[in-house]
Amino acid sequence: MKFQAEYLRSFTKQVFLSIGCSDADATLASTVLLSADLRGVDSHGIARLAGYVRLMDHGRLNPNPDIKVVYETPSTAVVDGDKGLGLVVAPRAMEIAMEKAEKVGSGWVSVRNSNHFGIAGYHAMLALEKDMIGWTMTNAAPLVTPTFSLDKLLGTNPIAVAVPAGKQPPFVADFASTAVAYGKFEILQRKGLPAPIGWAQDAEGMPTDDSNAVKSGGGLLPLGSDREHGSHKGYGLGAIVDIFSGVLSGANFGPWVPPFATAGFMNTQQAAGLGTGHFVGAMRVDGFRPTDEFKADMDKWIGAFRGARPVAGETVLIPGDPERETEKIRAVEGIELLPPVIEALRELASRFNINFDDPAN
Amino acid sequence: MKFQAEYLRSFTKQVFLSIGCSDADATLASTVLLSADLRGVDSHGIARLAGYVRLMDHGRLNPNPDIKVVYETPSTAVVDGDKGLGLVVAPRAMEIAMEKAEKVGSGWVSVRNSNHFGIAGYHAMLALEKDMIGWTMTNAAPLVTPTFSLDKLLGTNPIAVAVPAGKQPPFVADFASTAVAYGKFEILQRKGLPAPIGWAQDAEGMPTDDSNAVKSGGGLLPLGSDREHGSHKGYGLGAIVDIFSGVLSGANFGPWVPPFATAGFMNTQQAAGLGTGHFVGAMRVDGFRPTDEFKADMDKWIGAFRGARPVAGETVLIPGDPERETEKIRAVEGIELLPPVIEALRELASRFNINFDDPAN
Repeated sequence: MKFQAEYLRSFTKQVFLSIGCSDADATLASTVLLSADLRGVDSHGIARLAGYVRLMDHGRLNPNPDIKVVYETPSTAVVDGDKGLGLVVAPRAMEIAMEKAEKVGSGWVSVRNSNHFGIAGYHAMLALEKDMIGWTMTNAAPLVTPTFSLDKLLGTNPIAVAVPAGKQPPFVADFASTAVAYGKFEILQRKGLPAPIGWAQDAEGMPTDDSNAVKSGGGLLPLGSDREHGSHKGYGLGAIVDIFSGVLSGANFGPWVPPFATAGFMNTQQAAGLGTGHFVGAMRVDGFRPTDEFKADMDKWIGAFRGARPVAGETVLIPGDPERETEKIRAVEGIELLPPVIEALRELASRFNINFDDPAN
Repeated sequence: MKFQAEYLRSFTKQVFLSIGCSDADATLASTVLLSADLRGVDSHGIARLAGYVRLMDHGRLNPNPDIKVVYETPSTAVVDGDKGLGLVVAPRAMEIAMEKAEKVGSGWVSVRNSNHFGIAGYHAMLALEKDMIGWTMTNAAPLVTPTFSLDKLLGTNPIAVAVPAGKQPPFVADFASTAVAYGKFEILQRKGLPAPIGWAQDAEGMPTDDSNAVKSGGGLLPLGSDREHGSHKGYGLGAIVDIFSGVLSGANFGPWVPPFATAGFMNTQQAAGLGTGHFVGAMRVDGFRPTDEFKADMDKWIGAFRGARPVAGETVLIPGDPERETEKIRAVEGIELLPPVIEALRELASRFNINFDDPAN
């Protein structure tokens, strides 16, 4: 069943207020979270709201963090998120990166002691308003087996890059460094369907179509799927994200990155650093070329790709097109939520005594 | 048959001197070119030497370029390569990036009006000596079909990232944004063998095992191979490289990037900018954390990955391991060259009246 985005955002804001966030932080966090639902990245939106509350219950979340720069040069910094919501820490880090870019052309901020930050694309796109190119990366709990490894050592470690254009909408690439997002397995699990070969390996490191493989000793495969098709490149990409987000900041990295919202891990395994790590960057377009020249060439770039001859029955898309199309539709028609997500929202409503008008009732 | 690296480097230097390069540039260019052969990237080494000479013959190469910054901020710049050898332009751009990093923490240089720069990893690794993280990207002539496109719009557009460690050797990822490098098709073509499905598409955009597909209307596939396995991510990655290298600098981009060493293209198709584009960057490790802390954590990172349980009969490698192993062996045992490569060197020796002691004679 469907809900209007603003209704869900307002509900989400009240939940964040209920766990002790300031009004400004609750507004920001709910906006970031709902942007995922609006853009069609359902796995990173309101479906995770109960998880953020569990983080709080487990003592891993500080609702009123003192987010601050702990180390810096004119174009670089490390920000300590003070166990705050990644949804709030990442935009703040991006602001710092953009302030640096304003002054010296570019700004690069590695973040430690944070939590899950929602969709990477949201933060990268903050740079667009200022005619900057935005970068975002984050590490995540280990689900991915590097090429020829039986051990899961990397998260799905996404990268987002947002580039402004002129008359064309911006270029926004936002993708995990794996063959697929873990959410695709969850969909197949619910339906009892197998997964395509190339998405996961089994406990012996062999190709498998078992959509439960990651839960039974297997692992998610890096982009490229196998060595012959370049999985070592997807592994390299995920490793770069992990090093920039975790090692450069002093956050956890590799097998030590804590899971999204459970307590168990932190109690059983020594940490390698503080919380989850992110890496964000901003480059002023006019740190390289006059902005109007750059934008005219970006329009030409986008035009050339959008105008390519397509494979029969298909369309050549520009990175960012599918999410923008979904957002247009969902902003009007509302956001479809699955029954278990609605059930979780009902529980939050009951726990925090917030009104939740389920349209089914 | 095998040749010692120093012998080939000296021969290569003489060829570059013969086309009018300065002694310093010929030394640098020959060192960069031979580093590819030493590291096992045979397709980007001395096998291309005759191609660089053809660039000169076609009037596309300036042997004495005035490489200069044409636009800059404290942390960013555009460098015009003045039609110089990419082998010389890229290290100079990296020097500028490192000078900026020395002053303000990081430096980012987009390069226009250059040519093929050899292996991306060489330039990124220049940062290691200064305890910096190095980045390199370059665009290249269009061989790659974006997801669902019949037109070839992107090059193999590689990315290299080099990260210093402490007691461990450095992390050096250096990979094309395609499923495989084009050189792998050339090997299969010579042997008359088919290619694995997932490397190329045919003229209708369908999967094919034809190792000549790219020459007969097909295209190289982005990393991920098909939409179901994330080819839109490989496409996004190649697009980011193209935009940073080409659009940000004012070089050619997308379908307009000139081929390595033929003249025809430039005569038949309008250029979108100047020459080939690169993007290089350097970040001071101590722009983020004290260097010793960072290196200790990199050693821990590398140790965790190297220590992972391997798939039976395989080894879990760190990006950079295979090239370093090859270099150790080839530095002692020499570099094996294929007969057509030796033949091309003989022709250059004859044309420029340089001594070439083919061990076969």
